[in-house]
Amino acid sequence: MAHHYDGETLWRRPEDLVVEEPLTVRVNDVDVATTMRTPGHDFELAVGLLHADGALGGAPVTEIRYCATGSAVETEFNVVSVSAPGAPEAVPRLGVISSSCGLCGTDAIEDMIARISFVAAAEPFLEDTLLGVVDAMIAHQPVFDRTGGLHAAASFDTQGTIIHAREDIGRHNAVDKLIGKQLIDSASQGQGSGAMINSILVVSGRASFELVQKAVVAQIPMMIAVGAPSSLAVELAKRFGLTLVGFNTGAKFNVYSGNERID
Amino acid sequence: MAHHYDGETLWRRPEDLVVEEPLTVRVNDVDVATTMRTPGHDFELAVGLLHADGALGGAPVTEIRYCATGSAVETEFNVVSVSAPGAPEAVPRLGVISSSCGLCGTDAIEDMIARISFVAAAEPFLEDTLLGVVDAMIAHQPVFDRTGGLHAAASFDTQGTIIHAREDIGRHNAVDKLIGKQLIDSASQGQGSGAMINSILVVSGRASFELVQKAVVAQIPMMIAVGAPSSLAVELAKRFGLTLVGFNTGAKFNVYSGNERID
Repeated sequence: MAHHYDGETLWRRPEDLVVEEPLTVRVNDVDVATTMRTPGHDFELAVGLLHADGALGGAPVTEIRYCATGSAVETEFNVVSVSAPGAPEAVPRLGVISSSCGLCGTDAIEDMIARISFVAAAEPFLEDTLLGVVDAMIAHQPVFDRTGGLHAAASFDTQGTIIHAREDIGRHNAVDKLIGKQLIDSASQGQGSGAMINSILVVSGRASFELVQKAVVAQIPMMIAVGAPSSLAVELAKRFGLTLVGFNTGAKFNVYSGNERID
Repeated sequence: MAHHYDGETLWRRPEDLVVEEPLTVRVNDVDVATTMRTPGHDFELAVGLLHADGALGGAPVTEIRYCATGSAVETEFNVVSVSAPGAPEAVPRLGVISSSCGLCGTDAIEDMIARISFVAAAEPFLEDTLLGVVDAMIAHQPVFDRTGGLHAAASFDTQGTIIHAREDIGRHNAVDKLIGKQLIDSASQGQGSGAMINSILVVSGRASFELVQKAVVAQIPMMIAVGAPSSLAVELAKRFGLTLVGFNTGAKFNVYSGNERID
């Protein structure tokens, strides 16, 4: 229940709140990260987070499950254990990741940059396709309508058809869930991690360094933000060949890097 | 320069970008955190971040200065060194904190909660005061107007008069800068850290767990968000006696906890 004031009357009414809870991610039985997230699609979140962070080192995931350990803040569904035999020995190097944090716990920016590769060439995208994706993503945001508190991320193919959409209180979690979903699907189809090579990643809000980093690691050629990009986001996008679009209102947009991919 | 598309024409034009750069914070010559932030008010950011994180352990700050160490990503103005004789031995436990991350690197949520105290009683606030603060904060956001990419935080007194306003690409940084400013001012006036006891903290965007945690540690009695609060933010606010207001449009707002402070 919340008290609602409008300058004239005051009344109490029930309010839907966007849920924020800690999720601990464990690799081969070692805790490696705790992220503040909106529950749902937790296995995808775990895989996407570990992939962006380089924590699997290319090792295949053989099992993902919920587990609890008896800690005061843990519940059964707030711990995800990932088995990936052959992954680098997991070091509990991450602390608590806030609901809008993506880079936390990575030892240094240099390390992160050293691990990522230039995004491969991709099919060109049409201007009209780019104009249509934001409305299409919003149409896939059921929780936001009710609570006003969630970020969204969605993937689209080169024709502008939506592939998947995910929501979370943390922008970085929504992106991790989306990329994790693609990775899990690709693995189950024996495709490796190449499934996003011709896709578009659309994010609500702003484009910061951390989101560009995740897109580049996933080898996504184009990222579209509804809001503004940061200086470092543009710099990283240019350096690794990501096409970065910002301020996409559905009627217009700006291209900050990689304009050659737009037809 | 960005390429601007509007469905009809395409032109190139200069675009102001909100600056995002890493700031490394050092305590007694040990690196403890690297945060992605918008440069400016860096000393305040360092002090506010360390305070929220409990890293000073109540030790007085005797010197704050810029310094460089020769790392590839560091420049002179991207490292702040804080001297606080008597602070707990600094452990380089934080990794890179993204531009929207506040809790990163804290070892566990339990530890964090164990360190914070119930917010002391404060003077009541008038409904009209609360309705006026959002517009007043926006009037103090010069960079946002130009780039559309910054979060803001501002403090107000019980009469609704603005005390300070800060902007940053990271919501948590804007709050750290604001609280750091008050702490530095209080210390120079020999007032201890009690300066925010009767103030209001206003934040653009949403109220997440991390922001409520910072407000409670600073013993601020009221936090107002322009956007939605999360479930865990409301829970923490209730537990520690913070009045939490959300969806403040200037014409109406919701109160999620501590309604007794509103007259």
